[in-house]
Amino acid sequence: MSLSREELECIDLYFHPESVAVVGASANPFKFGYQVVRNLINLKYPGKIYPINPKASEIQGFKAFPSVLDVPNSINVVVMAVPSHVIPNIMRDCERKGVKNVVILASGFDEAGPEGQAYQREVLEVAKRGGIRIVGPNTTGMLNPSFGFTSTFVPLDTVKAGDISFISQTGMFAGMMMEWIVSGQEFGFRKVAGLGNKCDVADHEILYYLAQDEGTKVILIHAEGIKDGFKFFEALKSVTKTKPVVVLKAGRSKAGARAASSHSASLAGDDQIFDAALKQSGAVRAESLEDLVDLGKVFCYLPLPLGDGTSCISLSGGAGVMAADALERNGLSLEELSDETLSVIKDKSPVWAIPSNPLDIEPLTEIVGFVDAYTLGLNTLLSDNKVDSCIVQHGTIFRSEDEIRFVLEARERYPHKPIAVCIIGFKDIYDELFVLYERNKIPVYPTVERAAKALGALNRRRQYLAEL
Amino acid sequence: MSLSREELECIDLYFHPESVAVVGASANPFKFGYQVVRNLINLKYPGKIYPINPKASEIQGFKAFPSVLDVPNSINVVVMAVPSHVIPNIMRDCERKGVKNVVILASGFDEAGPEGQAYQREVLEVAKRGGIRIVGPNTTGMLNPSFGFTSTFVPLDTVKAGDISFISQTGMFAGMMMEWIVSGQEFGFRKVAGLGNKCDVADHEILYYLAQDEGTKVILIHAEGIKDGFKFFEALKSVTKTKPVVVLKAGRSKAGARAASSHSASLAGDDQIFDAALKQSGAVRAESLEDLVDLGKVFCYLPLPLGDGTSCISLSGGAGVMAADALERNGLSLEELSDETLSVIKDKSPVWAIPSNPLDIEPLTEIVGFVDAYTLGLNTLLSDNKVDSCIVQHGTIFRSEDEIRFVLEARERYPHKPIAVCIIGFKDIYDELFVLYERNKIPVYPTVERAAKALGALNRRRQYLAEL
Repeated sequence: MSLSREELECIDLYFHPESVAVVGASANPFKFGYQVVRNLINLKYPGKIYPINPKASEIQGFKAFPSVLDVPNSINVVVMAVPSHVIPNIMRDCERKGVKNVVILASGFDEAGPEGQAYQREVLEVAKRGGIRIVGPNTTGMLNPSFGFTSTFVPLDTVKAGDISFISQTGMFAGMMMEWIVSGQEFGFRKVAGLGNKCDVADHEILYYLAQDEGTKVILIHAEGIKDGFKFFEALKSVTKTKPVVVLKAGRSKAGARAASSHSASLAGDDQIFDAALKQSGAVRAESLEDLVDLGKVFCYLPLPLGDGTSCISLSGGAGVMAADALERNGLSLEELSDETLSVIKDKSPVWAIPSNPLDIEPLTEIVGFVDAYTLGLNTLLSDNKVDSCIVQHGTIFRSEDEIRFVLEARERYPHKPIAVCIIGFKDIYDELFVLYERNKIPVYPTVERAAKALGALNRRRQYLAEL
Repeated sequence: MSLSREELECIDLYFHPESVAVVGASANPFKFGYQVVRNLINLKYPGKIYPINPKASEIQGFKAFPSVLDVPNSINVVVMAVPSHVIPNIMRDCERKGVKNVVILASGFDEAGPEGQAYQREVLEVAKRGGIRIVGPNTTGMLNPSFGFTSTFVPLDTVKAGDISFISQTGMFAGMMMEWIVSGQEFGFRKVAGLGNKCDVADHEILYYLAQDEGTKVILIHAEGIKDGFKFFEALKSVTKTKPVVVLKAGRSKAGARAASSHSASLAGDDQIFDAALKQSGAVRAESLEDLVDLGKVFCYLPLPLGDGTSCISLSGGAGVMAADALERNGLSLEELSDETLSVIKDKSPVWAIPSNPLDIEPLTEIVGFVDAYTLGLNTLLSDNKVDSCIVQHGTIFRSEDEIRFVLEARERYPHKPIAVCIIGFKDIYDELFVLYERNKIPVYPTVERAAKALGALNRRRQYLAEL
């Protein structure tokens, strides 16, 4: 059961508000309320900004108001950048003002003992009475780069708009991880929802919303706890039929679950049950932040393969052995190639070379050079119908866009065969090649294990969809 | 049973030759024989260099000789940078010249069908007759940065000398991996032995040699196959009693083993048996290149902890939850801290803060700022006797040497408590902080899972040594 049209529209308002009030907006750069306004300016938010601060008449160029009740127009979203103890009062103001969407950034609620729990109860009572939806508390809230809206207090200059949407529980993920991604990755974000303690708006609602959001190609989730497991897995099962979902679930261990409860008041639950339900739902489980991004990227960039068959081309037999291990461990199969395929390589290689799968292209490079050897090798591998996907592994021998063009050309010739790249070599050249490849939606990994895991995830999704 | 004094001296000659002849030395930068001479010049090799090339009188500034027989002085090591089919003849020259140590770089031997196998038989016959030891074939051979010697054809400008020694099977690891390490890591190499097909000199000999090599603090091994498993595990069992050994064993899967046989003529063997024997021997198994370096570094930089107890300090509850999961998964234990410990933090934090283990330091930062909060937090954690090790997790909020000094100072105060750092944030700042920390032998990891795995490996080594 998905959401009603009204429910979807309410979630959509969180990503496309025409007006936003920032309670606790400030001219002091060390305050969260400063940064929220700053971020809206940085992202070129096209709507109305109403700073709320009883002690200021103007903040960062915008007329400030003592309370939301003093704002002359209607307000789509209220972002509360003030401590927990004042929030019940602000909620009552929002009720009187007729606000329907709020984001509460502060911590100090259910996770913070009896006092915090009392605040949360009060806030929820007002919300129920006033028909107000709440994102948070204890989070960074929403981000929609293509519209220029955010509620986050984590300093952001620009955030690339893209195809990957992200539901996260904690500020860390909308903060540190966002910084890591904007500075080190080429993909962009479609929509980010930081849900925090999830006292109201929950994962499954955002999932249904993103399922019908055309620009969202892949959904990543970080969660410590899920408030309503039944609704969550029901949503997941429905959404994974059309879009890949990758889940990083923290609070797996005893110590982790204890920490989750004191952090986001989450009941982490039994991890074995969660894991089993996740598998059934067709979602993919990530083991770390890195893994979440590795898998998110591969679903975003590459097509699903047509079968289990795989291959690797490398300049080193040793690298090929490691690739074979990793690919097989991830459920892919390195079949012996046809004599026709092998003879294309063998005919041009030194007499002593014995090409096989994985393909060590080094002998051929001694005759025709690096670029021609890789070009012939990759095209020949992909021409074999036992090869449904391929890892291209090379060192920092290639250093320019020209030299790696063979990968893009091979992809054009074989658009249904996903290609992942693994580069090991000089750090600065790796960094440059990474950008050149990823800008063209070819995923690059620093180890063959990570490349193989990504291709394996594509193949398992193919199998999952085939069995539906 | 270790090696005899003569055997050790013979291995030592491979790392400290007073003279080296490079057969196939060349003025053509595209030839392996060019690069070997070039590398010796780059590394400032202090011994005599004799280029062997019948078509040249001088190569890269050194007088060239038609054959090793024409060299007027004795030769400690002969590096053969020529194709396999001419090597039996060169070996006969070496026999007549009285050479005792050779390195064969070329492939095209046992891994390359009947013809190659015939070459290898012939080479071994001559070696036996002449009492010649062989490293290789099909490899890059030796590297000793502190002495300035190498036999490798992989272009090297400089290689930092350091504490980590490395036994590898294939050129890839002395090539691509070396480039990755010299350009992206701060640690240096003590000695590197690339053994290739291991037709003669084998892993266990280098292991015994490195065990008694004072400058070697940690030994890393990459192997596709082990020629004499009994001797290998016997050596391993003996060496791990004094030095940590980390093993990356490739050729684990069916496809990987097949590839290993065609690559380095290795019998990869049953991986389950290998794995069990490795555990018994006290060595640590790495799962990838990244893992090999992660673990090598941690053994090189940090002391073993005194117990299982661990902790994490972070600016985000979410990061703490992930840390707790990862630490527990790696056999470490997050105990509840004493009231005395917790009250030190609580007394300075906002009233709503409830410090615990893992420690979310964010509340305290709101009162005393980032640096003071982390300083107090880390020192307080380490003062608790239930904390034997700690992960310091932070974003790119810290940007200078000054700001991260608290980690170094805490290490000085608690020298028996290993500290690993995990940073997630802006890429360029990560790169800078990485250098600042690692230069001071504090290991930095981009995910908390990798940091936790490293601390877990230290603790397992402590347990292993305690049970001896």
